[in-house]
Amino acid sequence: MADAARLAILPYFRTSGLKAENKLTSGYDPVTVADREAETAMRDILQRLRPDDGIWGEEFGQVAGTSGRTWVLDPIDGTRGFVSGTPTWGVLIALSDADGPFLGMIDQPYIGERFVGAPGVAEMTGPQGKAALATRATTSLDQAILYSTFPEVGTKADRAGFEAVSAQALLTRYGMDCYAYALVAAGQIDLVIEATLNAYDVQGPIAVVQAAGGIVTDWRGGPAHQGGRILAAANAQIHAAALEILQDY
Amino acid sequence: MADAARLAILPYFRTSGLKAENKLTSGYDPVTVADREAETAMRDILQRLRPDDGIWGEEFGQVAGTSGRTWVLDPIDGTRGFVSGTPTWGVLIALSDADGPFLGMIDQPYIGERFVGAPGVAEMTGPQGKAALATRATTSLDQAILYSTFPEVGTKADRAGFEAVSAQALLTRYGMDCYAYALVAAGQIDLVIEATLNAYDVQGPIAVVQAAGGIVTDWRGGPAHQGGRILAAANAQIHAAALEILQDY
Repeated sequence: MADAARLAILPYFRTSGLKAENKLTSGYDPVTVADREAETAMRDILQRLRPDDGIWGEEFGQVAGTSGRTWVLDPIDGTRGFVSGTPTWGVLIALSDADGPFLGMIDQPYIGERFVGAPGVAEMTGPQGKAALATRATTSLDQAILYSTFPEVGTKADRAGFEAVSAQALLTRYGMDCYAYALVAAGQIDLVIEATLNAYDVQGPIAVVQAAGGIVTDWRGGPAHQGGRILAAANAQIHAAALEILQDY
Repeated sequence: MADAARLAILPYFRTSGLKAENKLTSGYDPVTVADREAETAMRDILQRLRPDDGIWGEEFGQVAGTSGRTWVLDPIDGTRGFVSGTPTWGVLIALSDADGPFLGMIDQPYIGERFVGAPGVAEMTGPQGKAALATRATTSLDQAILYSTFPEVGTKADRAGFEAVSAQALLTRYGMDCYAYALVAAGQIDLVIEATLNAYDVQGPIAVVQAAGGIVTDWRGGPAHQGGRILAAANAQIHAAALEILQDY
């Protein structure tokens, strides 16, 4: 499915003919032909090979299945980055049951990087070959590297919670979209804190981060796979340190 | 030189043994072994092949030449991105005379992308092969995509100026380091606005953006190659629109 999405998307990446439409009446949330063609390509494969599974995709919504499993798809997570030409967007794929995602992939087709998490599997492939994914052991916020996609984060309260953690972190950076979760799984950064996410934005990343040894919850410590406010952390200690601050917001 | 820098840097990228030292007494400005080894590798080549040219590098300072030309080197621009594992840092190389840089390169070794600007040359190579660099024709801020490396930008006045332009832009994003200038040259985004840059942070990008049809000045419309406050724009009209706002700050 990721290969099919890659083939659908790359011809549109950095082409001047790409038309970004506006999904929202205000703001800028472009959805492109590439998004829709990639999701269609993935759905075609599922309908052929996994007809009993449900599908929940960003562009074409939910189709119920009978197997108890649902494929959760975001054909291009980080469309704003995509239309800007940055290599930080990704194809997100998750397979979930009632307890949430247990298999996930973050795929960056332009770089040629693929981050996979599943029971017994935590691995990336990229320009330098294969590598195991394993999160960092950082235990205090003053040594932690924190990412979020944009500094506004969400509501005023969302932003205030994020900034309260950021004030204690070693380094805060922005702009990585789903790639930030791959960096947690790869042991490069410690925390991703976001808000207003959709389920399809986060289910693939949850499975990848968890398989690599990390923890992903909402800002109250509960399940994150329905989206909303997300705290992804490299390990239990740094998760607890960030959660202690976020739970007041 | 870029090939030599690549060979020096990549073994350190995303390795858990990388030691980031602190250059500043406060804040976080890591300088790594990779920075120093890459600059040493580039200087070795220059001393052998261009002994009469000057050198100005981030890590080892200035060496005067006799030719009137100076090589301006930033072995890893975007060290914070580098230590976070993002693919947004770059090797910056410029060749300058008294009027500023006339040859420049932004090289991203992990992705395998190289953006080059020189008299008669505006070209990139990357995962999808070669492509000509040409900036966008966007003429109004409400259609412009604006980037800066971090939302604080610099002083309070720097930030206020940036935010005044951002308020009129279609989309504002952060976190790309030197890669944002490559995206201007590649016709993907319209504006990069930054402050507190050093000469070696901007001379390579200036030559690349200018060769692709863009304009780079300071916030008063003067030369930018000594660093400071930078406005890089896709074309004369979008440059004028941003400058009209920035010149009040």
